[in-house]
Amino acid sequence: MVSPGLVRLRIDCAYDGGAFVGWARQPGLRSVQGELEQALGTVLRLGGPAALTVAGRTDSGVHARGQVAHVDVPEQALAAAPGRSDQPPEQALRRRLSSVLPSDVVVHGVRRAPEGFDARFSAIWRRYGYTVVDAEGRRDPLQRGAQLWHPRSLDVPAMDAAAQQLVGEHDFLAYCKPREGATTIRTLLDFSWRRVDGLVVAEVRADAFCHSMVRSLVGASLAVGEGRWDANRPRDLLEAVQRDSSVAVVPPHGLVLEEVGYPPDDQLAARATVARSMREPLTTSPPASGATPPDSST
Amino acid sequence: MVSPGLVRLRIDCAYDGGAFVGWARQPGLRSVQGELEQALGTVLRLGGPAALTVAGRTDSGVHARGQVAHVDVPEQALAAAPGRSDQPPEQALRRRLSSVLPSDVVVHGVRRAPEGFDARFSAIWRRYGYTVVDAEGRRDPLQRGAQLWHPRSLDVPAMDAAAQQLVGEHDFLAYCKPREGATTIRTLLDFSWRRVDGLVVAEVRADAFCHSMVRSLVGASLAVGEGRWDANRPRDLLEAVQRDSSVAVVPPHGLVLEEVGYPPDDQLAARATVARSMREPLTTSPPASGATPPDSST
Repeated sequence: MVSPGLVRLRIDCAYDGGAFVGWARQPGLRSVQGELEQALGTVLRLGGPAALTVAGRTDSGVHARGQVAHVDVPEQALAAAPGRSDQPPEQALRRRLSSVLPSDVVVHGVRRAPEGFDARFSAIWRRYGYTVVDAEGRRDPLQRGAQLWHPRSLDVPAMDAAAQQLVGEHDFLAYCKPREGATTIRTLLDFSWRRVDGLVVAEVRADAFCHSMVRSLVGASLAVGEGRWDANRPRDLLEAVQRDSSVAVVPPHGLVLEEVGYPPDDQLAARATVARSMREPLTTSPPASGATPPDSST
Repeated sequence: MVSPGLVRLRIDCAYDGGAFVGWARQPGLRSVQGELEQALGTVLRLGGPAALTVAGRTDSGVHARGQVAHVDVPEQALAAAPGRSDQPPEQALRRRLSSVLPSDVVVHGVRRAPEGFDARFSAIWRRYGYTVVDAEGRRDPLQRGAQLWHPRSLDVPAMDAAAQQLVGEHDFLAYCKPREGATTIRTLLDFSWRRVDGLVVAEVRADAFCHSMVRSLVGASLAVGEGRWDANRPRDLLEAVQRDSSVAVVPPHGLVLEEVGYPPDDQLAARATVARSMREPLTTSPPASGATPPDSST
């Protein structure tokens, strides 16, 4: 998988998505990928930016605390990077990245990836959090960049009951902006709503997410929480298996990619092979159960 | 205390100090006081900004979650402010303020102040928090506006032991930028350092603070936490009773005014009288024990 002379590094990072067009590099615009690739190129003296592969391609304005990416770099460049002699080169690289990155991107870890690791295709799940403030007295201006201020109070038990009904493997077309030839079948592993310190917090975990899926699931939840929708409607929409324009997509700033899950090291390569095969455009039939594709936009 | 025809309102508010020159109004600059006074003038149609009195005059870049201010407004203007008929006028005013204020200032409460209330002079204590991140793995870009990223790990028990020695009534000259004629005697009611979820958090409570006092106490604590200072040195500096240039003043963005304490309603006026008398410039001797002045810059 990794070309000779190159070493694959796993990079764990966090960012405030507020001032980015999203993870993905776009010419002339400020992206997380662009900042990190530029920093890697500078610190490792690659003569240009590095090329990162990421677990969760977060949209514009979405944050991350537990993003994972990988990059293949020349073994020589890594060894040549200056650092204290008592530090492994990966640790020296992390420190040097910290010194050149802007303060809204933090690299928490750099290490040699285990055999078969692919940040995107080896991942078995992505976990997101979404935070809503439904009481004006709980609005904290210091947290406003990562919390949705909602003008009406919410029925959290009803939202949670509606969310529970969506857990499992389904065609999430009603909650996705579909992409040509790509399946919208996903396995939702967890979806809960709880009140935590007066705030309304969703935890959403799935093998992968299609485009705008988390923000659509949150939008449907808010409709239930306000009493505009019956608690069964989010599940009924799912069963209709069609894009539904009544589902609102909530703003991105309440959303945080919290964690990406990987299988044990000896299953990394097998998982990547299965997941990669699922990315081929569909022709006639949806993929077999349990083998959903790893798209991960939100 | 309140002129005839006017009603005194207590205003509880919070702000992200990052984009302000501080609480205090300054011509041509963006201040919290300026934003709030402008908003009050607009919403109450006063024909100009209102005039606020505040409990804690926070410095540039310092945040607040529990700031308290008061304003005297014409009874007629309050009654005339549009609002739903089932809402008390104070609540309608709070909602209208929310709609005109920028998102970095939030008004959590507006209510008629009890007899004798003065946001500044009736206050009996101010409580601040300061948060330091001493492990790179704990740096959260979403919290970077309210946490100090410190490059070295800290000995929190040593910091806490040093802090405990400062509690009580002392002349805090070593930790103050003195102002002509103003005493630097304060009663430090609590000063502790704890590790909370991997972060290093100070809680500081005093009857009042002189200028840059909290940030100097934190600076001395960091010197102890890094092992550069013995845990007794902060107390020894106090006893020298002179301004000490070895005390570093830490950056403001880790500091949050969390809460202001007031006595029971029947003691508000008496407290204000005592505190106000202490603000007269000193001529020969410091004020009597237990009656320190209510300056509250940080």
